[in-house]
Amino acid sequence: MGHGTYVKGLETTATFDRDTQHFIIHSPTITSTKFWPAGLGCTCNYAVVMAQLIIDQKPYGMHLFLCQLRDLHDHKPLPGIELGDINSKFGFEIVDNGYLKFNQYRIPRTNMLMRHAQVSKDGTYTSQTIPQIVYLSMMSTRMMIIQGAADDLAMAATIATRYSAVRRQTANSKGVEPQVLDYQTQQMKLFPAISLSYALWFCARSVRSFCNQVMIDIQGGNDSRLKELHCLTCGMKAFATEMAASYIEMCRRSCGGHGYSHASGIPKLYLQCLPQSTYEGDNTVLYLQCGRSLLKFYMLAQGGAPVPSTMQLLAETGTIPANLQAATDFNLTLYELILKLNTLSLITDTVARLQESSASKNADAAFNAHSLEIVDIAKAYCLYTTLVWFIETLEETEWDYEAKTVMVQVCELYAVHNILVNSGSLLQNKVVTRQQMSRIASRRVELLAELRPNAVTLVDAFDYPDRLLNSCLGRYDGNVYEALYEYAKSSSLNHHQVHSSYEKHIKPMQQALMAKL
Amino acid sequence: MGHGTYVKGLETTATFDRDTQHFIIHSPTITSTKFWPAGLGCTCNYAVVMAQLIIDQKPYGMHLFLCQLRDLHDHKPLPGIELGDINSKFGFEIVDNGYLKFNQYRIPRTNMLMRHAQVSKDGTYTSQTIPQIVYLSMMSTRMMIIQGAADDLAMAATIATRYSAVRRQTANSKGVEPQVLDYQTQQMKLFPAISLSYALWFCARSVRSFCNQVMIDIQGGNDSRLKELHCLTCGMKAFATEMAASYIEMCRRSCGGHGYSHASGIPKLYLQCLPQSTYEGDNTVLYLQCGRSLLKFYMLAQGGAPVPSTMQLLAETGTIPANLQAATDFNLTLYELILKLNTLSLITDTVARLQESSASKNADAAFNAHSLEIVDIAKAYCLYTTLVWFIETLEETEWDYEAKTVMVQVCELYAVHNILVNSGSLLQNKVVTRQQMSRIASRRVELLAELRPNAVTLVDAFDYPDRLLNSCLGRYDGNVYEALYEYAKSSSLNHHQVHSSYEKHIKPMQQALMAKL
Ligand SMILES: Cc1cc2nc3c(=O)[nH]c(=O)nc-3n(C[C@H](O)[C@H](O)[C@H](O)COP(=O)(O)OP(=O)(O)OC[C@H]3O[C@@H](n4cnc5c(N)ncnc54)[C@H](O)[C@@H]3O)c2cc1C
Ligand SMILES: Cc1cc2nc3c(=O)[nH]c(=O)nc-3n(C[C@H](O)[C@H](O)[C@H](O)COP(=O)(O)OP(=O)(O)OC[C@H]3O[C@@H](n4cnc5c(N)ncnc54)[C@H](O)[C@@H]3O)c2cc1C
Repeated sequence: MGHGTYVKGLETTATFDRDTQHFIIHSPTITSTKFWPAGLGCTCNYAVVMAQLIIDQKPYGMHLFLCQLRDLHDHKPLPGIELGDINSKFGFEIVDNGYLKFNQYRIPRTNMLMRHAQVSKDGTYTSQTIPQIVYLSMMSTRMMIIQGAADDLAMAATIATRYSAVRRQTANSKGVEPQVLDYQTQQMKLFPAISLSYALWFCARSVRSFCNQVMIDIQGGNDSRLKELHCLTCGMKAFATEMAASYIEMCRRSCGGHGYSHASGIPKLYLQCLPQSTYEGDNTVLYLQCGRSLLKFYMLAQGGAPVPSTMQLLAETGTIPANLQAATDFNLTLYELILKLNTLSLITDTVARLQESSASKNADAAFNAHSLEIVDIAKAYCLYTTLVWFIETLEETEWDYEAKTVMVQVCELYAVHNILVNSGSLLQNKVVTRQQMSRIASRRVELLAELRPNAVTLVDAFDYPDRLLNSCLGRYDGNVYEALYEYAKSSSLNHHQVHSSYEKHIKPMQQALMAKL
Repeated sequence: MGHGTYVKGLETTATFDRDTQHFIIHSPTITSTKFWPAGLGCTCNYAVVMAQLIIDQKPYGMHLFLCQLRDLHDHKPLPGIELGDINSKFGFEIVDNGYLKFNQYRIPRTNMLMRHAQVSKDGTYTSQTIPQIVYLSMMSTRMMIIQGAADDLAMAATIATRYSAVRRQTANSKGVEPQVLDYQTQQMKLFPAISLSYALWFCARSVRSFCNQVMIDIQGGNDSRLKELHCLTCGMKAFATEMAASYIEMCRRSCGGHGYSHASGIPKLYLQCLPQSTYEGDNTVLYLQCGRSLLKFYMLAQGGAPVPSTMQLLAETGTIPANLQAATDFNLTLYELILKLNTLSLITDTVARLQESSASKNADAAFNAHSLEIVDIAKAYCLYTTLVWFIETLEETEWDYEAKTVMVQVCELYAVHNILVNSGSLLQNKVVTRQQMSRIASRRVELLAELRPNAVTLVDAFDYPDRLLNSCLGRYDGNVYEALYEYAKSSSLNHHQVHSSYEKHIKPMQQALMAKL
């Protein structure tokens, strides 16, 4: 309850009792109560518990212990175990996230998970931990979260785009009501969301294949790319979940009033995506880890060390080539260069400022004083890298000519839209000139119009079946209003023509009022 | 169901039947089904219905009709009326938002609301409508929504700030875990939210007093300021609800995992604030109305017409004074000037581009092609005006010295933060130089540190009682963990030690699995 982010701060203890060959698991404070694990509230029989190992009053850090929680015959919590559901949440109401407290609860010594560290019968502690290995399962969970965020967003974009092609609003001067998808403001809500959906899909694919490669390396005894993978998965998990959540909400809003109904299906997608910004690592904390690690790789690279494959940019100098200042060719290559230089210029600035601060402040204070910049570095790196992967996917995949043309537009929109979102920093750091920025702004407006005819096809291409979208607004057949009407009629409040509250509350009130007339 | 935004598009008809002196109210299509009114589902007995008036096959536009919906004796819908609840929504689950369809439903002629337009016994139509008057009730509702958004945000900021002073996470190099409120990144989540809370409070106050004044004018027969009020309430309603919703979500996220629990109280505030972006006018549509109206006032002002009091900036030229380019005095006066010039420069640019487009496009297409810019104008105007009102409040109110010092910092943070959020446009339009922007960026970082000691006091000053905050995290006494634990224990899933799903689902599954062992 007191610590999610800072694992070392967990207060639960596992004290070795040599006499009985037990560990005594105990929750000494209210804050040491475990909170949140899914299924813990009413379901789980066992848990793997992280606790501070104590042998002869000496702490040995966090270790994992297998604990039985409930009796296998009657499902009651065992003596020494207090647990339950944590009560109502924003979403995931059907999941029994739980809490758990131990009161001097004993488990056999052999219930410690001893692969990386051991406690022998006589209480001798040995350890062969490579710390990063422990994080491996977290990295692959983060990898899956990226795909989850991509899916949630792509589904929301599908729903909102299809609905916007059905929805008509506000007659023009000829008396015709356009599809709302024809409004420029509506396109600006949806088309960046579509392009982001594709970008995150390709990102998830790239992270997955990189992750699998590193796993194979590790099985072959080579763990040299673990740090790179850690940096990448931290940053990309934060980037994907943050961007997806905000664009899902934009999709919801683009559906007007009906977007607020669960009939739209978007609120559920939002609530599913939202906590991914928090669990498996709070996004801010992850960005800080990614940014800090990029700074380290950069310093090493400046010292001549080899640069990891996904961080090739760190070996470059960060000066803006003259041809960029004079660029007239506005294409993906240029946009990629812009986002690369943006990242590099943020890194070099921050390195200089950190060094300056370090002269007057201790390391914690200096880091904290520049933590906003470090977050910005991580974000810039993720944006740049997702664009690189998007472009690679365009190049590597076999596309037919028409599809490729449209996908290049989608990629271009991803690039120019995000360049404009970051225009303050790009102008400030002189990566882009005002003239260039104004060209890029015009290009975005052109791209909205260019993408309009293919917008519905682009979301149909995600190929989510209606069953999965579970949305009256996003149905493939477009029969939005019939579906909304059926959805309304099926409300449980409509089971009786007159609701039970009438006799209880409304009728007496009404009678009292009428008596006064 | 088919129209919320475009009232003229409503399809429900009210056909005059001379013989019986009735209006026949009818919903001819599925899309003409009314959707959303609160209380309609199970509660209301009467409704004021907007319908297309038809006399002798000729349409006369939208008019209001009083319709009884339910029998006053048994609460059943009357013949010709079909209604019910619209089913589950994102929030407001306790409200019975409803739907309503009419099947040739007859009401007496006198049930038409005839203040501004009349239908006589013989079917003669007369009208004295001043269209803006009809919108007056909408304007005052929008005014109330601004206050609602300010309240929702201020409550969320109170909860998150208090919790961040209790929550500690991640030991520093001395082994001490700081309050998370000490992290720069955390301050950046919360302090702009606090400053926005104050800005929106003062904004609501100013709009309210302006609105009351216009109402008094109207009672005295002077409706000359209605258009100004319309422009102002459209823009400010959109601005307040959009900004508040996004900062409430930021506050929620700043609470880490526990922010996702309803124990935090923030999800409910979010869900309450969210649909305010949609009802009483979709925000995009309102921004477009505000922006369009600003352009009109600007053109009039350029032609020498007097400028409404809240739009004095439109009488100015929009050139950047040399002293701004060379400014070394970074204070509220400068920030106000920057935001004013930003608005003006957006207006003058858009006017020029609109004129250009009008040469080649019809009016609808030209307007649509620049609608993103028009939205930006409205946003810039609202931002500028809220800062003006904030500064006025600082000047007009009697503050003691210490309070004033802190409030000036809050106001300054509101200004510099939003200048930085808009730095792309400000640099692009040459309103601010790169050197100035970098000074402003440093100032924001300083302000975060300056505000830190008073952060909790600043939210305590809103003086929301615990009963209203309804939050385990935001309690005044700071007993967060005890409250979270009690909240968890009170979950209905914990009423029995073993949940009923055990006998039904888990036990058979468990037995089947164990039999296999
Ligand atoms: C919780 C809740 C309570 C409500 N309560 C009531 C109530 O009590 N009574 C009642 O009558 N109604 C109520 N409503 C309905 C509400 O007023 C409408 O939903 C709202 O006016 C928006 O209209 P719409 O749904 O038609 O959206 P749409 O106009 O269909 O919006 C869809 C999209 O199209 C865009 N769009 C529409 N027109 C234009 C344009 N001209 N230019 C550019 N873009 C455009 C919008 O920006 C939006 O992105 C309620 C709604 C909610 C969510
Ligand atoms: C739906 C859901 C399901 C979950 N499921 C599980 C589960 O199955 N098992 C499990 O063990 N946990 C689970 N969790 C808990 C989750 O892992 C934690 O909530 C998450 O790790 C964040 O930690 P926290 O709550 O301690 O946040 P905190 O760290 O307390 O965050 C509060 C604020 O402090 C800031 N902050 C914290 N540390 C720093 C720092 N060093 N520098 C700068 N800022 C900082 C954060 O950015 C945040 O703004 C779940 C949570 C949710 C919401």
